[in-house]
Amino acid sequence: MKALVYNGPGQKALEERPMPTIDAPTDAIVKIVKTTICGTDLHILKGDVATCAPGRILGHEGVGVIATAGPAVTAFHEGDRVLISCISSCGKCDYCRRGMYSHCTTGGWILGNQIDGTQAEFVRIPHADTSLYHVPEGADEAALVMLSDILPTGFECGVLNGKIQPGATVAIVGAGPIGLATLLTAQFYSPAEVIMIDLDDNRLDVARRFGATATINATDPKVTERVMKMTGGRGVDAAIEAVGIPSTFVLCEDIVAPGGTIANIGVHGTKADLHLERLWSHNITITTRLVDTAATPMLLKTIQSGKLDPTSLITHTFSFDRIMDAYDTFSRAAETNALKVVIET
Amino acid sequence: MKALVYNGPGQKALEERPMPTIDAPTDAIVKIVKTTICGTDLHILKGDVATCAPGRILGHEGVGVIATAGPAVTAFHEGDRVLISCISSCGKCDYCRRGMYSHCTTGGWILGNQIDGTQAEFVRIPHADTSLYHVPEGADEAALVMLSDILPTGFECGVLNGKIQPGATVAIVGAGPIGLATLLTAQFYSPAEVIMIDLDDNRLDVARRFGATATINATDPKVTERVMKMTGGRGVDAAIEAVGIPSTFVLCEDIVAPGGTIANIGVHGTKADLHLERLWSHNITITTRLVDTAATPMLLKTIQSGKLDPTSLITHTFSFDRIMDAYDTFSRAAETNALKVVIET
Amino acid sequence: MKALVYNGPGQKALEERPMPTIDAPTDAIVKIVKTTICGTDLHILKGDVATCAPGRILGHEGVGVIATAGPAVTAFHEGDRVLISCISSCGKCDYCRRGMYSHCTTGGWILGNQIDGTQAEFVRIPHADTSLYHVPEGADEAALVMLSDILPTGFECGVLNGKIQPGATVAIVGAGPIGLATLLTAQFYSPAEVIMIDLDDNRLDVARRFGATATINATDPKVTERVMKMTGGRGVDAAIEAVGIPSTFVLCEDIVAPGGTIANIGVHGTKADLHLERLWSHNITITTRLVDTAATPMLLKTIQSGKLDPTSLITHTFSFDRIMDAYDTFSRAAETNALKVVIET
Amino acid sequence: MKALVYNGPGQKALEERPMPTIDAPTDAIVKIVKTTICGTDLHILKGDVATCAPGRILGHEGVGVIATAGPAVTAFHEGDRVLISCISSCGKCDYCRRGMYSHCTTGGWILGNQIDGTQAEFVRIPHADTSLYHVPEGADEAALVMLSDILPTGFECGVLNGKIQPGATVAIVGAGPIGLATLLTAQFYSPAEVIMIDLDDNRLDVARRFGATATINATDPKVTERVMKMTGGRGVDAAIEAVGIPSTFVLCEDIVAPGGTIANIGVHGTKADLHLERLWSHNITITTRLVDTAATPMLLKTIQSGKLDPTSLITHTFSFDRIMDAYDTFSRAAETNALKVVIET
Repeated sequence: MKALVYNGPGQKALEERPMPTIDAPTDAIVKIVKTTICGTDLHILKGDVATCAPGRILGHEGVGVIATAGPAVTAFHEGDRVLISCISSCGKCDYCRRGMYSHCTTGGWILGNQIDGTQAEFVRIPHADTSLYHVPEGADEAALVMLSDILPTGFECGVLNGKIQPGATVAIVGAGPIGLATLLTAQFYSPAEVIMIDLDDNRLDVARRFGATATINATDPKVTERVMKMTGGRGVDAAIEAVGIPSTFVLCEDIVAPGGTIANIGVHGTKADLHLERLWSHNITITTRLVDTAATPMLLKTIQSGKLDPTSLITHTFSFDRIMDAYDTFSRAAETNALKVVIET
Repeated sequence: MKALVYNGPGQKALEERPMPTIDAPTDAIVKIVKTTICGTDLHILKGDVATCAPGRILGHEGVGVIATAGPAVTAFHEGDRVLISCISSCGKCDYCRRGMYSHCTTGGWILGNQIDGTQAEFVRIPHADTSLYHVPEGADEAALVMLSDILPTGFECGVLNGKIQPGATVAIVGAGPIGLATLLTAQFYSPAEVIMIDLDDNRLDVARRFGATATINATDPKVTERVMKMTGGRGVDAAIEAVGIPSTFVLCEDIVAPGGTIANIGVHGTKADLHLERLWSHNITITTRLVDTAATPMLLKTIQSGKLDPTSLITHTFSFDRIMDAYDTFSRAAETNALKVVIET
Repeated sequence: MKALVYNGPGQKALEERPMPTIDAPTDAIVKIVKTTICGTDLHILKGDVATCAPGRILGHEGVGVIATAGPAVTAFHEGDRVLISCISSCGKCDYCRRGMYSHCTTGGWILGNQIDGTQAEFVRIPHADTSLYHVPEGADEAALVMLSDILPTGFECGVLNGKIQPGATVAIVGAGPIGLATLLTAQFYSPAEVIMIDLDDNRLDVARRFGATATINATDPKVTERVMKMTGGRGVDAAIEAVGIPSTFVLCEDIVAPGGTIANIGVHGTKADLHLERLWSHNITITTRLVDTAATPMLLKTIQSGKLDPTSLITHTFSFDRIMDAYDTFSRAAETNALKVVIET
Repeated sequence: MKALVYNGPGQKALEERPMPTIDAPTDAIVKIVKTTICGTDLHILKGDVATCAPGRILGHEGVGVIATAGPAVTAFHEGDRVLISCISSCGKCDYCRRGMYSHCTTGGWILGNQIDGTQAEFVRIPHADTSLYHVPEGADEAALVMLSDILPTGFECGVLNGKIQPGATVAIVGAGPIGLATLLTAQFYSPAEVIMIDLDDNRLDVARRFGATATINATDPKVTERVMKMTGGRGVDAAIEAVGIPSTFVLCEDIVAPGGTIANIGVHGTKADLHLERLWSHNITITTRLVDTAATPMLLKTIQSGKLDPTSLITHTFSFDRIMDAYDTFSRAAETNALKVVIET
């Protein structure tokens, strides 16, 4: 089969690879129908993700069809259309029992990282019963690809951890795909204000169309002052970090109100300064989280009931044989205005 | 009247000062019966607390008797014995309505800081109805002094924010009076293990008597390794910082388990490193809090029902005219083994 | 001044009454600008509310202007435009400190019940600082009258107690003003389905315009079966009772899913059967609540930010001298299609 | 093998039955080491449990050794000592993913009810990986038998649902084994007062030894008045029903404070009166629950750390061949003072 392979820093290729096979009785082999590229795939290609060895097939998102179900798989059968979660979960270990699938002792984020991933014609999914979801009748499968990672990530790490409530004031720092997914799902809770902050005016335009009540270009030297002015000098109830660098995290520290929350989503490569000399008495909460995808069944319901339309996140569609072009388009987002690119086999 | 006055960095004196008077109809004048000294008073004397101007009467803890109640005070009358909260709360502003009294727009921690405090024969208490508590019949008033600050601080900032639950594994970094108050109140929730970490072996001995299941001297170069070993390699569910310096905060980052909480109690004078490059994916929560004393009514009940005995925190008692000696004893705790010193008028 | 007075069961009159005066330093006298009639006022007129004695001025909702503020009132001044809460709250007692203002030991629902109410030219408001809210600049004051009672009631007793979450399935039994206020505020949380059940097809039409995803006329002998069919045989996550009779409460017992919640809003005059022989093992929660109006500041924000438009609840407007006609219209709602009637002085 | 078999109402026998076999790859066969008898077994013997057909081997509690593990069982191997949960849980269905194992679509309470149970030399355990727990090294296995049902039931349905907190006032109605298990685990949260109410003075004596702060014999015609007097006229924060008849449930309605909770544990055979005409405005919560045993890992930790000693619940021990005598002793508890009887194979 064809697969997009990571061949070491800066190197990737569309290669011919052997078909995956059932290793454990709880595995399933899924024929990929649609997949996509994540910002994390670009991190891997920079050589930033030590757990991902050269030779790995990339990709942890997708929708497909069950080609083979292992003998202990009970919830899925050959021919079932499935949504693949970026997180593999055994459903049995202590972490899984607590809903913290991201830290499953035999799973977590392994797809396209420690085991071969979804940017291929077929993929092996471990713990299939607890890591796949049935595609609902009549669902838009391109929309569902957004449920593999980006929407649960924005929702769990940003919205739930940020404790967004009706009437709340929220700032989202970073208007990339994850920040925008956070913006979309934040509106489940009817916040009064959502301020988006980013360097890219095009993305801020998109954010306003997606429901942001205000936007600030991060190059403005008075970002903090402007947020304070918008919030009556108080700061925001929730500051959501969706970039992953020290300066944006510190911005969140600057704009969070007493009693508020900083919800980190960004993947950080270095430490940040935590200004405890000011924050120790501010009654704040800071959270970090690798997405658990525990919210996926709920998010499926909101899509089915029309409360959430993820298709607005999809800017480009490519056939699988053009996946190298898809990478090119996605990696030059500032020029191409790409958000999510869907790749169809 | 006599009062202990802060006269600028390094300077304090027992002076004669005019009696306080009712300023607002919601004020009360309280004759002090017992007071104590807080680590924060020592910070003020070092010149570290910018909000506290020279000339200020220190002290924010105590038990007393209502001498005069302002005309709008309804819950307290002349002669009532009262517990003084370190936090003044109007009961009306947005923060007070949310139970976040520490940030009351006309109160918060002002006693012995922005207004004259309790280390005096009399003190003016603003917002008396919502900042004082009736001393229960037959209560040990020295014990109740521990409820002005130290016990609600340990409980709210450490135990509640640390989300301590039955069966949990907890580390408390710092076995000073606040750390020990945290240890005492942590046991309300029956954690399986409480590990105390401190530089002072005497305080670690006290901690074991107070219920710690393990202790580690912080000079041990393998503190982190030892905690990891004690917790099956997982780390602690709650790491409580009760010191207030960067290295102890970073120790908490090192020993907190995935899914766990770092609850900061310490008063920090400088920033700390937040190792997001490791913690971003660990699903942790970090909290800060200035005590709200919202838990005071509950803590009163636990003392009345015998679930909590704060007298074990009191190591020394002085008459008010020997308050300079009390300061000396308290500030040389490593030699005197002082925890809390009670001062009686 | 003119006032609508309850003169015993079945009897009311627009009478001349003396102006109210400040009784306690925390009182304010408010000149009424707009008021309305509540279903509870009709209950009083039937003689069903024992705490309300003949001679009482009715009404517990309204917007007005401060005519006189007592000497201990600090948050409001003569001329301030204010929203009146149906619940008077001292802000000091144990219940108020817990946010349970409905059970304030010197307040609660007393207006137009145990003390004279708002259907008059002037009203005395006890505990003014904690029972009034500033009218925001530019707000629609008729809309704000819906915040005195009906919207916090629907939101707190129905939506919050019903724990409505994104993707949830909800049934609201009763499409009167309270049921519709619940429907409006339920949408703050993006439930997937909201099924409204009522006897009146007109109200069900209104419910669909207000966002109900399905409606069932309660005369249908197969209401339970239809709800079960709509929910895949499982029942609803939240069944909200907004009528106040045994049969509608039992209907909620019939349609609630395992793990779900029955949130009672209705004012009941008699006991209901609780089918514990079936429900004991269903992991359900049943809640009751007299509105606390603790959510009023948040609801004000949602109106200001355009997330909630309560004007759709207002069907009729009368001048104060026609308040007897307003009662007539409101009490014949099945014929007049009245929801809320606004009365302007 | 030998097994205790239900042969229809009033009939049971110790019979020879075939060994159980692996039906599904996720099954395990467990050799029973210790088991016990539950009040529910007596209900079955009265013919009250329709789901349990004659011919069924009874019992849903026990500790044993893995005799055979099915091919898809990964967490347990032949020879492992295991605690058997009364609830079988697949770990995959919607209910299991929410931690509501009691309603597992292919499990729940089926042992000794819909499938053969633990009062036998061997038992087949479905969904072994998620329905068994490893016996910790050195644990007292008789004590662990109390973790199969009675302790998680008291803790989850009574203590957790009753939201017991430090300083709370609690009443437990019913001092049988379940009520006493509730009393033991309630103390994890340091309530200020726990009042036990029962007809049997011996059980009330036991309750005082187990930590009850007050007891009332239920034959006292002034039970309600006495509880009100003990609670300053307010009622209890949590009223826990551990009997299962209408009158004890109504007693809970009578003694619960405004803002409090009624947590039902009792298995009810008939409906009860819910006095909504009084409770509608009391801001109370009522909960029901079939135990999920989600708390079992936590309870194991509290036993290992010495916070909980369940051996006090064990009054008698029998060898397996005397199980008919064990039933006799257990069913005449008023005479024999039996709480839990342990049966050893």
